[in-house]
Amino acid sequence: VAKVDEKRIRVGLVGFGIVGSGVAKLICEQADALAAKMGVRLELACVVDVDTTRPRPVKLPAGVLTSDLNRLLADETITVGVELVGGTTIAKDIQFKMLRAGKDVVTANKALLATHGAELYRVARENGRCIAFEASCAGGIPLIGAIRTGLVANSINAMYGIVNGTCNYILSNMSSKDEDFAVALSQAQAKGFAEANPTLDLSGGDSAHKLAILASIAFGYEVSLEDIFVQGIESIAKDDIRYGREMGYSLKLLAIARRSDEGKISLRVHPSFIAADCALARVEGSFNAISIFGSAVGETLYYGRGAGMMPTASAVVADIVDVVLGNSKRTFDHLLIRPRSEAQSLIERIEDSVDRFYIRVMAQDQPGVVARCGQILGDHQISISGVLQHEGCGPNGTVPVVITTHNTRQHDMAAALDELAGLDVLAGEPVCIRIVDIPEDRDT
Amino acid sequence: VAKVDEKRIRVGLVGFGIVGSGVAKLICEQADALAAKMGVRLELACVVDVDTTRPRPVKLPAGVLTSDLNRLLADETITVGVELVGGTTIAKDIQFKMLRAGKDVVTANKALLATHGAELYRVARENGRCIAFEASCAGGIPLIGAIRTGLVANSINAMYGIVNGTCNYILSNMSSKDEDFAVALSQAQAKGFAEANPTLDLSGGDSAHKLAILASIAFGYEVSLEDIFVQGIESIAKDDIRYGREMGYSLKLLAIARRSDEGKISLRVHPSFIAADCALARVEGSFNAISIFGSAVGETLYYGRGAGMMPTASAVVADIVDVVLGNSKRTFDHLLIRPRSEAQSLIERIEDSVDRFYIRVMAQDQPGVVARCGQILGDHQISISGVLQHEGCGPNGTVPVVITTHNTRQHDMAAALDELAGLDVLAGEPVCIRIVDIPEDRDT
Repeated sequence: VAKVDEKRIRVGLVGFGIVGSGVAKLICEQADALAAKMGVRLELACVVDVDTTRPRPVKLPAGVLTSDLNRLLADETITVGVELVGGTTIAKDIQFKMLRAGKDVVTANKALLATHGAELYRVARENGRCIAFEASCAGGIPLIGAIRTGLVANSINAMYGIVNGTCNYILSNMSSKDEDFAVALSQAQAKGFAEANPTLDLSGGDSAHKLAILASIAFGYEVSLEDIFVQGIESIAKDDIRYGREMGYSLKLLAIARRSDEGKISLRVHPSFIAADCALARVEGSFNAISIFGSAVGETLYYGRGAGMMPTASAVVADIVDVVLGNSKRTFDHLLIRPRSEAQSLIERIEDSVDRFYIRVMAQDQPGVVARCGQILGDHQISISGVLQHEGCGPNGTVPVVITTHNTRQHDMAAALDELAGLDVLAGEPVCIRIVDIPEDRDT
Repeated sequence: VAKVDEKRIRVGLVGFGIVGSGVAKLICEQADALAAKMGVRLELACVVDVDTTRPRPVKLPAGVLTSDLNRLLADETITVGVELVGGTTIAKDIQFKMLRAGKDVVTANKALLATHGAELYRVARENGRCIAFEASCAGGIPLIGAIRTGLVANSINAMYGIVNGTCNYILSNMSSKDEDFAVALSQAQAKGFAEANPTLDLSGGDSAHKLAILASIAFGYEVSLEDIFVQGIESIAKDDIRYGREMGYSLKLLAIARRSDEGKISLRVHPSFIAADCALARVEGSFNAISIFGSAVGETLYYGRGAGMMPTASAVVADIVDVVLGNSKRTFDHLLIRPRSEAQSLIERIEDSVDRFYIRVMAQDQPGVVARCGQILGDHQISISGVLQHEGCGPNGTVPVVITTHNTRQHDMAAALDELAGLDVLAGEPVCIRIVDIPEDRDT
């Protein structure tokens, strides 16, 4: 074995929260192993946080913790800056400053990259630096590396991902424990799988951030959040999860990026009924999984922990090593992401989208109601693929009627739902959830 | 977006079989896309094969196909040589020649790397070149990249892999269609999922080749085939798959690399009963999947096509791009694999291994037989975890008795099996298959 000289790399870390603590821990504990494996010795030069007193789960060497970002910026021996502050305001300023101070940036900040990625990439290029962000999507799963390098010879046709552990934890528990949304949410909060303010997760916003990053890499176009249709899980009722299951479906919040045969790109995040026996349906609790369909390789699937202290830190440290070896820079320099203006016309508008749907109405238990629903759907060119009617179990003598459809244009479905909502023999608003038929790559 | 000058790279390919055709096809068809995405334009400079007349599923530009390896070696404009000849003799010579002619090597040749990897790596280093081999394990799944870069911050504790599509196809069909081994094998051959001479696959040898490569990267030690305990699937009876299923298990040929708490390394390939509800149990047909347990990230799992023309070509072309960008070289230079002599004492001997076992004996249907079997196991300190006795259905009035055990030393099991084989109330040899409890990484 050829001897390779050990390279010492001083790392500056901004944001000493949960992930920051994990990164500090990994750098300190794995320094010898990384030096032996990769010839790179990481040194934690400084850790910047406004709070320098709160106890953390890792003990830093004396003098490393500081509240002064300038110490990091001014130290020319620090070549890599890790931004783990989160958010899109202070974090953006910190990344700009680090790039302009000549440091490569490693980050887990999906919100920032999804909203200001193009601007950040430009500043990085202007300063001859790179930004590495493996930790921004799917935590510890080396997903971005897979898309950017492992699948580089493929045209990516589609991605279907469970990329938000909080939502998957809640939906899993609503399904397996027959819990209401509110109960499952408070359980998730009690166990640390949901934040005190869970809005960004539940609304689908966090998944959309990740989808914007993944889709831009996979398709080579700058994707804006505005290009993504987003629906959250806040109004999901456990009854619909149960009825769906009876019809062979499992409910997941999916982030989907798909190229149609006509070359249109569909980008969406929404609750999705998927076949209960498919791989993504079996992803339980806070785990993430992403199925990617490549033109040469067919389906590949990646599974693991999408969040948490050490899994996310694993991805951050992998990026630091990749930056240090120069690989990130090369990949970053060559990564061509065309401006959004070029992609604009390719993005499918949700009004034009075609999906299968699950519809549930609460019908008065009287003759002819199902027929009237069917009539309305038929009037809008909507073809029914299945019906499930349970015996009376709703409020005020109503019965739930569940209807699944064949492929239907969103436009037609919206019109039919409007009409259904106006029927006096139905109580409340109809429930409507998309059914997603994930293609199956199987032996032939 | 900064403009990056396009880099033209001339590639020489040796071996114009199935995968070679796929690589040629991808290089020709994806040249523009790769140039746009990565700033690298691949050019197929020559394709070397002894057979220059047989029709292939891809049309090469005129003058590219040749039977003369020297044309590739002598052409200094060719910087990357792809070896897809296979085998361990001619292929080895070809790789040596390409490295000494100053070309980086990309290969899918697991047999060669598993048997002569250390020597090839040495010659590559002496010549300032690198060898990239993502395609050697698990076909199109970017697995080696994940271990080497994505999980670099982790100490790998264990890997459990289905890495041979032929065996998984056969075992899947024996299970789902209740087919005998011979029938499932000839079906696999008819459909192109098994070769005319399937010995290397069925014996577990091919899986062992892949395990040697994966384990050497994951653990950082040169692993020899002699370090791996290997058992094939040739003698698996469909009845045992059925009885195992009744007890909650699915039968897979697993490649396993595991570090024990005492730091010992266990390396094996053998038929394995695994919990029917675990992720690997659900991998059907010719697909591959690998579960990796990292110290920081926990479990990650990778799934996809482990063989075939385009999936393997996808990995080969990804490696070519990685070589061209210089990433492979850096990773290769820094990849420290300690010599086998240092690992020798760490490798667990199979005699010392501790496993759970599934045992099936064909017992005369008379009183006291099960008790005598239990007595023999007890005499050897083997504790029973489950028993399944079906009513008479074997030949000559025998009944199958299935016993599963708690953790048992291989040494004790071998002694007990010897004694069981000598019992006159049993017909034939006892069947013995390992049960593997794959750890579950779940939310707590």
